[in-house]
Amino acid sequence: MNPSLLADFYELTMMQGYFLREDNPRAVFDMFFRRQPFGGGFAVFAGLQTLLEFLASLRFTAEDLAYLQETGVFRPAFLDYLSSFRFRGDVWAMDEGTLAFPGEPLVRVHGSLIETQFVESALLAILNYQTLVATKAARVALAARGADVMEFGLRRAPGVDGALSASRAAFIGGAAATSNTLAGKLYGIPVRGTMAHSWVMSFPGEREAFEAYARAYPDAAVLLIDTYDTLGSGIANAIRVGTALRQEGHRGFGVRLDSGDLEYLSKRVREQLDAAGLRAASIVASNELDEQIIEQLVAHGAPIDTWGVGTSIVTGAGDGALSGVYKIAARHDRDVWLPTIKISNNPEKVTNPGIKQVYRFRGPGEEALADLITLEDERITPGERYTFHHPMGDARSFVLQADAAAPLLRIQMKDGRPLADPPALADLQARARRDLARLDDTYKRRINPHVYKVSLSDRLHDLKARMVQETLSQGGAR
Amino acid sequence: MNPSLLADFYELTMMQGYFLREDNPRAVFDMFFRRQPFGGGFAVFAGLQTLLEFLASLRFTAEDLAYLQETGVFRPAFLDYLSSFRFRGDVWAMDEGTLAFPGEPLVRVHGSLIETQFVESALLAILNYQTLVATKAARVALAARGADVMEFGLRRAPGVDGALSASRAAFIGGAAATSNTLAGKLYGIPVRGTMAHSWVMSFPGEREAFEAYARAYPDAAVLLIDTYDTLGSGIANAIRVGTALRQEGHRGFGVRLDSGDLEYLSKRVREQLDAAGLRAASIVASNELDEQIIEQLVAHGAPIDTWGVGTSIVTGAGDGALSGVYKIAARHDRDVWLPTIKISNNPEKVTNPGIKQVYRFRGPGEEALADLITLEDERITPGERYTFHHPMGDARSFVLQADAAAPLLRIQMKDGRPLADPPALADLQARARRDLARLDDTYKRRINPHVYKVSLSDRLHDLKARMVQETLSQGGAR
Repeated sequence: MNPSLLADFYELTMMQGYFLREDNPRAVFDMFFRRQPFGGGFAVFAGLQTLLEFLASLRFTAEDLAYLQETGVFRPAFLDYLSSFRFRGDVWAMDEGTLAFPGEPLVRVHGSLIETQFVESALLAILNYQTLVATKAARVALAARGADVMEFGLRRAPGVDGALSASRAAFIGGAAATSNTLAGKLYGIPVRGTMAHSWVMSFPGEREAFEAYARAYPDAAVLLIDTYDTLGSGIANAIRVGTALRQEGHRGFGVRLDSGDLEYLSKRVREQLDAAGLRAASIVASNELDEQIIEQLVAHGAPIDTWGVGTSIVTGAGDGALSGVYKIAARHDRDVWLPTIKISNNPEKVTNPGIKQVYRFRGPGEEALADLITLEDERITPGERYTFHHPMGDARSFVLQADAAAPLLRIQMKDGRPLADPPALADLQARARRDLARLDDTYKRRINPHVYKVSLSDRLHDLKARMVQETLSQGGAR
Repeated sequence: MNPSLLADFYELTMMQGYFLREDNPRAVFDMFFRRQPFGGGFAVFAGLQTLLEFLASLRFTAEDLAYLQETGVFRPAFLDYLSSFRFRGDVWAMDEGTLAFPGEPLVRVHGSLIETQFVESALLAILNYQTLVATKAARVALAARGADVMEFGLRRAPGVDGALSASRAAFIGGAAATSNTLAGKLYGIPVRGTMAHSWVMSFPGEREAFEAYARAYPDAAVLLIDTYDTLGSGIANAIRVGTALRQEGHRGFGVRLDSGDLEYLSKRVREQLDAAGLRAASIVASNELDEQIIEQLVAHGAPIDTWGVGTSIVTGAGDGALSGVYKIAARHDRDVWLPTIKISNNPEKVTNPGIKQVYRFRGPGEEALADLITLEDERITPGERYTFHHPMGDARSFVLQADAAAPLLRIQMKDGRPLADPPALADLQARARRDLARLDDTYKRRINPHVYKVSLSDRLHDLKARMVQETLSQGGAR
């Protein structure tokens, strides 16, 4: 299936509108989001590689064109134009795994107005969802404080194919493994799993079910002990099997809890395992977990080694969607770039005009201090001091010295071709982990975190103020 | 891409476990959910056709097998078995668009234990998400009270491919159209769209932008009037263009509001349109809408003709996932079917044992009265009276006469082959609409609705009670 028509219909009608005007100037669009998901203090940028592959393969098949013709909305000359259409623009973007904050461009798309406009819907669908899921996974992994998180979300993921994006992004955000076998195959994510209640129920008794599983997987027997009665039968049957496995020299034995009070049960189960000499046995817990529940169980000392988290990661529970948008920032007109702005009665919704870069200022220990959005041609010089203006255009500001400030937007695609091979997913996960380690703990609180500063440079601040003023003074003249 | 590996890894390890035991009895699994999504009173079943296509095309490629081999978990004999594996089971299911209620089987899968177990993850991913979205769309459409709902959710949908499932399910649930062009092509859903702010911003002024759009689409010019100032410039510029179009004999003119107070603005805009003689002009509204907001605006008389709803439909906002599960109900052992049950300390989580059917009892006006879950071989005779037992096994019951009672589970796939051609999506939407019309309004309140009764027949009630008793009395013996 060719996904190129995955576009809001208005992208196509606007595209034909531009085409009929014979006006296809260069344009630059920004993708950014306005509000941190989950009430947290950071987002983990994800989805870029998926986007680049989509853009590189964009083309309209004869079947696509036949469908568009049937709608009765498109003219032959335009359909003919589409038949050879390719995305030939440039993409500047943060690397996947980079921490991102509201208001700053995560991605900048340069190209003709027609092509940059057309890609909006797919770009947002890809980046909004993967960034949301990666962020959620990072929050869950932080709550687990070093214990492994397994992403288990396939059965609650958005359809067959949405599940792949979910597993990819969850791994970037910090999940140690996935249950999704296809994601393991396609992306190289470690796959893991235990057993279902139906395994236990398909045998005459629990003990027989455990024994059969241990025969098949003597070195990976994680037994689900809550099918009938966790403390009444499950743990005793599991200990019998685990003891036999240990005597035969096998490792990897563990138990899984999937219901009941996880603190109470994990403590009782740990005691019984230890009393039986099975100190190496691991305890896996699952059952509608999220970062809040895990944080609480960890704080209460529940002896859980691995957390299986499904629904809350793949649905971004608590938010459901990143509020990412894609807005035109500049258009080319008679040899000059004209910055564009969208005005709104709500100051948060006024866009930042012009072609922009983002600099992350760092302290001596590489810790992130604040981000400065500049115009693309500004240079940040080490040792110099820079004024950080409040992004809503009010008078607040502060000054930081640029001892270590690096641009976050890199060119990732040139003339429609990706500039590098696909990155290894493990490297993206490592980047997210490193970025999180370099972020002060105050920004990582689960709720009500310290707000990381994203500010405007002198020049961008002045440009924005001038454009707001001009637009408002024109008023009804538009 | 072959999606057959879209399975939790444990499905494969369990599958090999059964294979190594050389024990692959027939089994029956039920898919059901435990709780209505969104705190509402009904769900709209969706996703069956997608599931049947997945099952019919299930096979493991050489590449899939090579990947599984690399994991080091699977033995050659099992991989060889997988190389010719097909799903050859039967699927009994409700028709898509049928209203569904907690606890009753929506789908029953019959086959060998290996194949019925294996399909769990994909089945749940498909049905949970599409049923969630269809239900949300139905709630939004009910709130709109006859005005059109356009599903606009692509940019907030779960990735490129998840968006297709979302548009399909939203249409079944009651959306009149989608913005997703690919969904239009693949599923025949009407596609619609207006224009983006970037269209307006890519012109020197708003009026020029509107005029250019009207030239390109004189009979479908729905102008977005909030880019600069809705009442200050947008509506005046739109009226100028709309008046010219009317004078030239064009139809289909309208305006779209995407920010601000939609009640206040729609009323002012309606007044101005009417005063200018543009009574036929439509008003489209969007901006983070859901059923609660729409219900309120409709109650306040906001003159909005079409609602564009995105995020809340495609993310199932307020729930994020249907709580659908897939549980073994019976297994074949030495020439008899043995019902199976999962016990839990929580009575809601105790499963209903055995191979089951669901009968919807209807009143004289075809209105749904209550659903009765029976064993598969029970027959419901018109005129007879049946006892409806509370599903949690307590003593509550009532009696209904079966004047019109129809089974809801039909055989949809036999020996791995679908029994009918794919249904037209419009027919599924019509079924949902008809089913909703036959459901009393008290069940359709947005929150705290009347709870529709789903009960157990005498025989099923007795079987369940006996099995709970037996299992608990065995206790640690398991």
